Amino acid sequence: MEKPELAAKISAVARLRGKFQLRSGALADEYFDKYRFESDPAILSAIADHLAFLIPPTTDGLAGLELGGVPLATALSLRTGLPTRFIRKCAKSYGTCRLAEGGDIAGQRLVIVEDVVTSGGQVLASCEELRKLGAIIEDVICVIDRQSGGASALSAEGFTLRALFVKSDFGDGNPA
Amino acid sequence: MEKPELAAKISAVARLRGKFQLRSGALADEYFDKYRFESDPAILSAIADHLAFLIPPTTDGLAGLELGGVPLATALSLRTGLPTRFIRKCAKSYGTCRLAEGGDIAGQRLVIVEDVVTSGGQVLASCEELRKLGAIIEDVICVIDRQSGGASALSAEGFTLRALFVKSDFGDGNPA
Repeated sequence: MEKPELAAKISAVARLRGKFQLRSGALADEYFDKYRFESDPAILSAIADHLAFLIPPTTDGLAGLELGGVPLATALSLRTGLPTRFIRKCAKSYGTCRLAEGGDIAGQRLVIVEDVVTSGGQVLASCEELRKLGAIIEDVICVIDRQSGGASALSAEGFTLRALFVKSDFGDGNPA
Repeated sequence: MEKPELAAKISAVARLRGKFQLRSGALADEYFDKYRFESDPAILSAIADHLAFLIPPTTDGLAGLELGGVPLATALSLRTGLPTRFIRKCAKSYGTCRLAEGGDIAGQRLVIVEDVVTSGGQVLASCEELRKLGAIIEDVICVIDRQSGGASALSAEGFTLRALFVKSDFGDGNPA
């Protein structure tokens, strides 16, 4: 599936109309539900086909950020054969005591996988926590870069963001 | 991959030796890290091949329970073409306000997808919450049934558990 057709399909499934309360508390009559494009296997598969080209060749593994990055990292793992890690927002306090589930991360060159990047705050926090644990993190890939400061915030700390789409690929007024 | 070979591979990647603190606070020198078999794409793909046969033919979609059920439901969705939902342990309080991410669930005949079922408490809570929201839930599939009361707890509330493996498939002394 070519990128323009994929963008149109993402928009068709994820752009919802109704009454929605945003995180800020404000009400909106449109909402971009990013989980919709992951719940449709044909769209998810096409996204993985394209995202695979954004993975640097020296990568040891993928790291999908909870929750939206996990289905993406899984699809990419199945597509590329790379192992994946599942990155919690808060570390579990029992068992293997890992922020990153799925295997060791120290010394591993991991690519962060995220669905949508806005300001980049959550991604940056996860990147820095993983670095502290010894992972080699340089690259973040995402489906949609909302062009709201995420790329520059990541760049300032030495991380490169590569996006399959930017918000404007979905057309004017799209809440993507 | 046949089931005995798959069980051996799961055990080889997920049975860890070391010093681990269990959820109860007790220390153990072995730990079964269920995320390990999801982080390996060859094993995950083989699991999805087998789990696909446990899905009833009238199913509208899959519902993967956060966190471990999400990669499994994603792999099964890609394998079968069924759409999937991602079920949070706690509902988000903003945006689309959904316990289930990825699409509507009311009137949908969903199969719950979980990694490991022990007493079944978390699975049962999720099944009942989804039923309250109008989903038609009758079937739960999992990779490993630890045979610790989960099947009967689910059965008592009208849910059928189907497992790819039971704990004893992994051999005596395995902490699976």
